Amino acid sequence: MPIYLRGLLLTPEQGQKSISSRNLADFVGVNPWQIRKDFSYFGDFGTRGVGYNIEKLAKEIKRILKLDVVQKAALVGVGNLGSAILAYPGFMIYGLDIAAAFDVNPKKVGRKIKNITIENVSKLWMLKKRKIKLAIIAVPRQVAQETADALVKAGVKGILNFSPCYIAVPKKVKVVTIDIAMDMACLPYYMPAS
Amino acid sequence: MPIYLRGLLLTPEQGQKSISSRNLADFVGVNPWQIRKDFSYFGDFGTRGVGYNIEKLAKEIKRILKLDVVQKAALVGVGNLGSAILAYPGFMIYGLDIAAAFDVNPKKVGRKIKNITIENVSKLWMLKKRKIKLAIIAVPRQVAQETADALVKAGVKGILNFSPCYIAVPKKVKVVTIDIAMDMACLPYYMPAS
Repeated sequence: MPIYLRGLLLTPEQGQKSISSRNLADFVGVNPWQIRKDFSYFGDFGTRGVGYNIEKLAKEIKRILKLDVVQKAALVGVGNLGSAILAYPGFMIYGLDIAAAFDVNPKKVGRKIKNITIENVSKLWMLKKRKIKLAIIAVPRQVAQETADALVKAGVKGILNFSPCYIAVPKKVKVVTIDIAMDMACLPYYMPAS
Repeated sequence: MPIYLRGLLLTPEQGQKSISSRNLADFVGVNPWQIRKDFSYFGDFGTRGVGYNIEKLAKEIKRILKLDVVQKAALVGVGNLGSAILAYPGFMIYGLDIAAAFDVNPKKVGRKIKNITIENVSKLWMLKKRKIKLAIIAVPRQVAQETADALVKAGVKGILNFSPCYIAVPKKVKVVTIDIAMDMACLPYYMPAS
């Protein structure tokens, strides 16, 4: 579903009203029958011979993924990677809003990046008050677990973790870990011998 | 397999000789029987009651994933994200070596980051001579496709793409796209209503 949503939001047919399952399939790299099957689970979004209404379908997928309301997120760790994340333009198309940033370095606290004032990491507990339930961890591996513990304590329910390590959280919290080195490490396997 | 490799390389039992399938399973978050089944495909690495020899198993997985020789990679785009990637400590544990970096900005060309001198993006064709087959794309979305085209022309066979867009490449080239916003956009779906 997120892949279809991205496809719908980025399709070159953006200006048009509808898209055929074939064109959407080509664009995102799956089979057209797979798209028709997946969408049929959630109701009927398409018109035979016309295709899917882009706007209506994107809205419906956003609703299914709970992205129909803007979701606020907090970033912890404003180093190289954290700065890149703050500058990343892709969040808003999914309705994600990085609304707070935290760092442990007193030199960084108080500085403003993209309209966000960096706060001291000791203030993480305030996330509960501000009803921020999503967080991004971009701190060194050694402090990733304690950062996660503080976030969970502050009521965070979803964590995107960029530290290359495992993080233990209660069952009710969802963690997605992105290990860019591991993603890269998968590539040689697919490369032809030469 | 990459997940098991990461588990083996990062396990707290690192100093020890062997690890049980149960401990490895707990650490990486899968079932022990899944681990035993997966490894059985590739031969017998374990000893009943003793567990798996950590060093031997890691070496064997590296061989399977073609990570037993150091794989050189090139980075294209040294902005916020590119700088974060250059500074990222996690590549070497998989035998990945970022050996070249390119940017279009003349102010950046010639500068050194982590012992790598940034080169002009017009020199991408030289990757062929230097036998670099892996590349990371960290350029703005608008120029991601032309960057990929230049990389493919320079003989690159595997691309890790951080631009939030689809990239078309010949079948013999493998692309993995990392869309951090999309990964994040999946989290609200799993979060309990509140």
